[in-house]
Amino acid sequence: MDDSPREACGIFGIYAPGEDVARLTFFALYALQHRGQESAGIAVSDGRIAHIHKGMGLVAQVFNEENLAPLKGHLAIGHNRYSTTGSSQLRNAQPYLIESYLGPLGVAHNGNLVNAPQLRRELLQRGVGLTSSSDSEVITLMLAGAPGETWEERIMTFMRQAYGAYSLTVLTRDAVYAVRDPWGFRPLCLGTFNGGYVVASESSAIATIGGEYLREVAPGEIVSLDTYGLHSRQGLPPERPALCTFEHIYFSRPDSVWAGRVIHQVRQALGRELAREYPVEADLVVPVPDSSIPAAIGYAQEAGLPFNEGLIKNRYIGRTFIQPDDHIRRMGVALKFNPLPENLEGKRVVLVDDSIVRGNTSGPLVRLLRNAGATEVHVRVTCPPIRHPCFMGVDMATYDELIAHRMTVAEIQKYLGCDSLGYLSLEGMMRAIGRQDGYCNACFTGIYPITLYEGQEKTIFEDVLAS
Amino acid sequence: MDDSPREACGIFGIYAPGEDVARLTFFALYALQHRGQESAGIAVSDGRIAHIHKGMGLVAQVFNEENLAPLKGHLAIGHNRYSTTGSSQLRNAQPYLIESYLGPLGVAHNGNLVNAPQLRRELLQRGVGLTSSSDSEVITLMLAGAPGETWEERIMTFMRQAYGAYSLTVLTRDAVYAVRDPWGFRPLCLGTFNGGYVVASESSAIATIGGEYLREVAPGEIVSLDTYGLHSRQGLPPERPALCTFEHIYFSRPDSVWAGRVIHQVRQALGRELAREYPVEADLVVPVPDSSIPAAIGYAQEAGLPFNEGLIKNRYIGRTFIQPDDHIRRMGVALKFNPLPENLEGKRVVLVDDSIVRGNTSGPLVRLLRNAGATEVHVRVTCPPIRHPCFMGVDMATYDELIAHRMTVAEIQKYLGCDSLGYLSLEGMMRAIGRQDGYCNACFTGIYPITLYEGQEKTIFEDVLAS
Amino acid sequence: MDDSPREACGIFGIYAPGEDVARLTFFALYALQHRGQESAGIAVSDGRIAHIHKGMGLVAQVFNEENLAPLKGHLAIGHNRYSTTGSSQLRNAQPYLIESYLGPLGVAHNGNLVNAPQLRRELLQRGVGLTSSSDSEVITLMLAGAPGETWEERIMTFMRQAYGAYSLTVLTRDAVYAVRDPWGFRPLCLGTFNGGYVVASESSAIATIGGEYLREVAPGEIVSLDTYGLHSRQGLPPERPALCTFEHIYFSRPDSVWAGRVIHQVRQALGRELAREYPVEADLVVPVPDSSIPAAIGYAQEAGLPFNEGLIKNRYIGRTFIQPDDHIRRMGVALKFNPLPENLEGKRVVLVDDSIVRGNTSGPLVRLLRNAGATEVHVRVTCPPIRHPCFMGVDMATYDELIAHRMTVAEIQKYLGCDSLGYLSLEGMMRAIGRQDGYCNACFTGIYPITLYEGQEKTIFEDVLAS
Amino acid sequence: MDDSPREACGIFGIYAPGEDVARLTFFALYALQHRGQESAGIAVSDGRIAHIHKGMGLVAQVFNEENLAPLKGHLAIGHNRYSTTGSSQLRNAQPYLIESYLGPLGVAHNGNLVNAPQLRRELLQRGVGLTSSSDSEVITLMLAGAPGETWEERIMTFMRQAYGAYSLTVLTRDAVYAVRDPWGFRPLCLGTFNGGYVVASESSAIATIGGEYLREVAPGEIVSLDTYGLHSRQGLPPERPALCTFEHIYFSRPDSVWAGRVIHQVRQALGRELAREYPVEADLVVPVPDSSIPAAIGYAQEAGLPFNEGLIKNRYIGRTFIQPDDHIRRMGVALKFNPLPENLEGKRVVLVDDSIVRGNTSGPLVRLLRNAGATEVHVRVTCPPIRHPCFMGVDMATYDELIAHRMTVAEIQKYLGCDSLGYLSLEGMMRAIGRQDGYCNACFTGIYPITLYEGQEKTIFEDVLAS
Repeated sequence: MDDSPREACGIFGIYAPGEDVARLTFFALYALQHRGQESAGIAVSDGRIAHIHKGMGLVAQVFNEENLAPLKGHLAIGHNRYSTTGSSQLRNAQPYLIESYLGPLGVAHNGNLVNAPQLRRELLQRGVGLTSSSDSEVITLMLAGAPGETWEERIMTFMRQAYGAYSLTVLTRDAVYAVRDPWGFRPLCLGTFNGGYVVASESSAIATIGGEYLREVAPGEIVSLDTYGLHSRQGLPPERPALCTFEHIYFSRPDSVWAGRVIHQVRQALGRELAREYPVEADLVVPVPDSSIPAAIGYAQEAGLPFNEGLIKNRYIGRTFIQPDDHIRRMGVALKFNPLPENLEGKRVVLVDDSIVRGNTSGPLVRLLRNAGATEVHVRVTCPPIRHPCFMGVDMATYDELIAHRMTVAEIQKYLGCDSLGYLSLEGMMRAIGRQDGYCNACFTGIYPITLYEGQEKTIFEDVLAS
Repeated sequence: MDDSPREACGIFGIYAPGEDVARLTFFALYALQHRGQESAGIAVSDGRIAHIHKGMGLVAQVFNEENLAPLKGHLAIGHNRYSTTGSSQLRNAQPYLIESYLGPLGVAHNGNLVNAPQLRRELLQRGVGLTSSSDSEVITLMLAGAPGETWEERIMTFMRQAYGAYSLTVLTRDAVYAVRDPWGFRPLCLGTFNGGYVVASESSAIATIGGEYLREVAPGEIVSLDTYGLHSRQGLPPERPALCTFEHIYFSRPDSVWAGRVIHQVRQALGRELAREYPVEADLVVPVPDSSIPAAIGYAQEAGLPFNEGLIKNRYIGRTFIQPDDHIRRMGVALKFNPLPENLEGKRVVLVDDSIVRGNTSGPLVRLLRNAGATEVHVRVTCPPIRHPCFMGVDMATYDELIAHRMTVAEIQKYLGCDSLGYLSLEGMMRAIGRQDGYCNACFTGIYPITLYEGQEKTIFEDVLAS
Repeated sequence: MDDSPREACGIFGIYAPGEDVARLTFFALYALQHRGQESAGIAVSDGRIAHIHKGMGLVAQVFNEENLAPLKGHLAIGHNRYSTTGSSQLRNAQPYLIESYLGPLGVAHNGNLVNAPQLRRELLQRGVGLTSSSDSEVITLMLAGAPGETWEERIMTFMRQAYGAYSLTVLTRDAVYAVRDPWGFRPLCLGTFNGGYVVASESSAIATIGGEYLREVAPGEIVSLDTYGLHSRQGLPPERPALCTFEHIYFSRPDSVWAGRVIHQVRQALGRELAREYPVEADLVVPVPDSSIPAAIGYAQEAGLPFNEGLIKNRYIGRTFIQPDDHIRRMGVALKFNPLPENLEGKRVVLVDDSIVRGNTSGPLVRLLRNAGATEVHVRVTCPPIRHPCFMGVDMATYDELIAHRMTVAEIQKYLGCDSLGYLSLEGMMRAIGRQDGYCNACFTGIYPITLYEGQEKTIFEDVLAS
Repeated sequence: MDDSPREACGIFGIYAPGEDVARLTFFALYALQHRGQESAGIAVSDGRIAHIHKGMGLVAQVFNEENLAPLKGHLAIGHNRYSTTGSSQLRNAQPYLIESYLGPLGVAHNGNLVNAPQLRRELLQRGVGLTSSSDSEVITLMLAGAPGETWEERIMTFMRQAYGAYSLTVLTRDAVYAVRDPWGFRPLCLGTFNGGYVVASESSAIATIGGEYLREVAPGEIVSLDTYGLHSRQGLPPERPALCTFEHIYFSRPDSVWAGRVIHQVRQALGRELAREYPVEADLVVPVPDSSIPAAIGYAQEAGLPFNEGLIKNRYIGRTFIQPDDHIRRMGVALKFNPLPENLEGKRVVLVDDSIVRGNTSGPLVRLLRNAGATEVHVRVTCPPIRHPCFMGVDMATYDELIAHRMTVAEIQKYLGCDSLGYLSLEGMMRAIGRQDGYCNACFTGIYPITLYEGQEKTIFEDVLAS
């Protein structure tokens, strides 16, 4: 009963002499935990030797004082992972850390390389061995083998060959590099920390450790953090920018900042636009907790309707391997959400949801509300119908799984059993975000910012190692 | 940075032939996870042999298909534990399960026996050995050794000797018993499940597994769930009822029902009362997430002010053994809450909090809001000042730790650095709850419903086993 | 492919102010590891508080510096366990440690109480609860509830009620007690250590930690080790002594001392007696390694034949959960022993084995030797045929499993496929041991030193807890 | 208290359609456990996809039915590791398994490449990244990047570049290759198994799984095991053969066969030679158990003296992290060996030891024997003084650590405190082995079969990853 798109990763980097960079990276990863819960890792360098620790699970499960202690140094990178490419195994955990001809090299990656199969093949052709199915190992080994006198040059060589979505933090013996693809698909931003520098997937991670937000890493930019401070060079000319809209809709923490705007504000604006586009006579606006709360507040304000909670979410929902069997399921076990009948009884309810992907959660929620006494349920979604998969690092679903690829809005409304269904228009969504372009909306429009190869969904290069 | 009172436990019991009672108990404990996160356990009986599995951590961490599989039977009890008496060790995990003269006997307990030291001593005097510092082992062994032909009689013998707070689920070879002390300090309620019966600390656990809520277990009542159905007898005459007010204020899930009222409604009413008692010119009402959201909604409605989120709570806060060192702490690491400056900028803010115990969280939150641009911060608390410790099973704090024991409200306001501070009056709180009596308000009033012994806070009987 | 009798346990105790008693107990258990490999535990007292750590597996697996560190004190007991009564679970691991009316009480036990079911029932009848199926918990709780002013008196009370085999070390707040049943079934001996005192199942454990062997604990004796030194009292008058012969034949380390004689010498003497009783024309004497090496040396010396190794035993045989499937088994996988063809080729071989219990190992060994070129194989066994089970703490086998209960010696010879088979006579065995009486030979003779109840093999009291 | 040289590894390979090759590899590794106890691993291929599992510890600890089950296929390689190069960490565990351009590639290695630092540098120079400090990863990546149409050609390319000791099993999608360096430093032999083929470090592993021994892999030979059967080609012309003498002296199991002779026989012959070279008036010949037993038997036979055990070795000695502190050490804790006084009392003892490396064990053993009553102790060693380190894969010790590098035999005798000391001569040792050449005796003579670079002992290429 989870219908969210899955983000690939949260990444972080820090260059801060005199600081306990491993501990700071731990706290930053803690703040980025929502971006990936499968594995976590930290690699550090003390200017001579690099150390790494990574493991499966939440940051707080992977790290303890004992394994954090040896991670001495003044520069570090870290990673939280959600599997997109590559399966859920320790060998796919990041960062990747290798010994290269120029010393230690570590990479933390968020995104998806569209031409990864070709890049894998090229690497293998030149005699490099791969131990995993992860794009990030491909990137690490491409950097290790790239021609170039300096790491910047090697990163530029990599950028000329890579095609797709990548935000990277790179650790070398002496420097951390922050790299973003020319479209800027995945987020990445810079900050300062007590005389040093940090880079993170989201500004909230910088705020969490007490750093100061500076700016985003620009599409195509390479930023180096080292003893000479923060330096920038353009690795590739920027393409037409294409930040993932879903960072606003769902992924980013509400307290993160994109394009100068706090996500929480944008989500309220999404709710307000939705209220304008799909008004309805109702008594109550209710969010799908927790991510849709700001949009529901915005909808309620704009519509002049009361906002209230109507569904309680179990705070401790985490990975459980125990599933209800069919018998129990038929009895109506409701693990994730319970309704609040007294708030809903006799009410015409607007249910605000951030997105509908497969459509397997919304229908049961509508029924929960009705059973709890709601006389009408009007579903409002803060983005347009999702009709196309993502190839830039979000585990959205395949065409067959996407409900809006298979059904019209009217059919979906019938399927969900709601009294009305309103998806925010693309224009309304962009108005709320505040900019008409600069975003990738391929999942709504099917217009991909980059060329996809035929059979993109298939692995071109046959898997030869079990994963 | 956590200033919540700590609840002792969540308990559950089920008698349901033909059902996978262990799995249902798992889901019920999952729904009761907020009541205790230190350990979890399930004991079952198949009418002949009893099995148990328990471990440290969250329910989802303790149980997997492998250890759940041997828990076969048609009656079960379960337990989530927060340590009050007894330390955080496996030996203190519940349920306790022993072999007794009349067959297997298991006990899950929520509460605190005021005369536990005396009871321990009596048990030891008659040659019984104890393996832990837990009240619950004491209860189990008292039941095992109590005179009486039937388990009901033995439970009645126990009730005549015990003094304090106890809600119990008891497992024998053939029956589950639900027992509540004569004051009804801790909650306990009954339901049906597909022809069988369930008992749980909160109604939401019954709803979660798809059961039907019946009623509360009455103070002093013994309810048996067995092949003859559900039977009640009065174990002891009820005392003047004294349900813990904090179940309404903080402990219970918002979707649980007490005294016929959903907690979420009561919390909204608390907010409305607070708005009436402590109105203030302001621009925004903001909750301390997540527990204060309904109260903030109620305050905002009553005050005619906008409700919005102002603080973001890290959803993945869990047990981490990594702590910020002093240096990092001074840098301002903010692990649990981040502010939303755009929502707060230039605003006069009402911050609604459910309770203030030690006062170590509220001050930093006020500063967070101010730093994020709030021009005024008015703190409103949904209960009166907590001036007295609890001896009925809530880990509230000692006298010395309680900020309201050491300071006046004016001093607290100064200490927190807020522009005004309003604690809901006892009368207002009870109005919101909807009943003038039937509650234990000892933590506010110092009027304990039961006699305390001198030196109650000290362990009378010296600990001889390391714990 | 293991045909050894299984010993219940190794026990240890130490009273030594100023010493790291937990570490010394660890090393003593390490030296007693051969007596039990299922679980290990250490309990200590510092004169005020007792601490314990125990776990499943070898001593070296259960203990590390981290869990050893809190075990502070100046008196301790320890235990290695092999399951006889009670299954292989942590709840059956020893020592048992409880809080009793007179303070902490810990017990480590080697043996088997013949009247344990009755004692369990009596305990349960007086309202004591049991958490395991272990005799040792029964003993602990009997001691906790025994009348008596002092621990010696309580131990005497226990001894009057207990019937069967028990060697115990008992830990109280201030003293360690060593107790042995009136028959002296299981071994127990005393030593000094740097001004303090130690007690151990075998003298080799005392030697290993650098202590001095003093003497055995006498049958029926209670020895106290405390601040007043070592004191003895007779708990019960001694019965006709009945030390388990198998301590000489198989269980004890070759470097342990019983009745003033080193085990290794006794085993050589057993071999010599065997050579006298069952001489044979042969070219070579070969032991079943490792336990039969001294007997084979003795046989060879007496017979004037060359001694050599003929079978190599995998030193790393330990618990593996991977078993050969039938197909692999038919291919002839030989996990435990490999033959040395060059030593055996064309030779008439005497194979010396310490004992034959079920008879499942000897046949394959005979075939191994023949396939490796031995022209004749003559099996010689250092004890008489085992025809009766043990009820004094050795997991020998049931009547049905004992090959010598089901078959005559001639039939066994045929079953094993050897050219001749000689079992040492009872008289010869006792001559080698050096004493005609003082031993329990019930497994050979069926004459049990104590009365067995009808249906001794069945559990009289039904198990009500899963184990 | 361990003075043994440490062997690098045990390796294994199997090609056997229709067999459970992972399980057979498990049993073979079990039989080779004495060659390495730090980590174990198995890689399999089903002709399409390769799977691997490896972990720290003994084979029986690393594998269980659950992790063995996915290792499906009909060809496999396996590895037991002792660390020589590279530290004791999972990342250094073998086999290495990678995806290469020609499919999966796995390598298990026993030996040491003298030019590994140069090879590492060359790999890194061509842009390959390394994740460990292990030679074996270097070999794997050299094979992955070697020019050549077939794997045989690539292996030949590798052999032309590698310099030093290597016995390899290589797994590709369809074949297993067995490779041995042109000197044949480390052992490797072939066998058949039920229509398929196996390759193992020692013949005893082949015998253990029920296979038939065929022959050794020749120095410089590449043997392929695949659907076409067993094929051989000469990868490099053989050098003057230089098998490690220590395989006879210490490493190999007594039941393994080298150069047509069972190790156990060779060791008896070593003892006999020693008796001829260093006879002494004595009453008893005693081995240092367990490895010196056959040599002591040989010595006793030749000298006409009685053989007996004088020292008992704790069978359960394994990895323990608990060490005696200085105080306990001074008390005389004797964890590994205990003496048998009755066998030694008043005797003039010959103590036969296989080798003396650092000399830290022999002195305490001499004292143990004397304290147990031996009137004289004459130490006899089955090889010459070890005066030079090994660079071919044995962790012998550095020059400074080798007692025979620092002291004359007379000084060593004095240091050990024995009455006489005899080291077998090189000639005597070779007579016992039965061949005058074909062996590497560099540790005795300092004449290395291959050229060493200056500063061989130092790592030329600086370590940049923590290990």
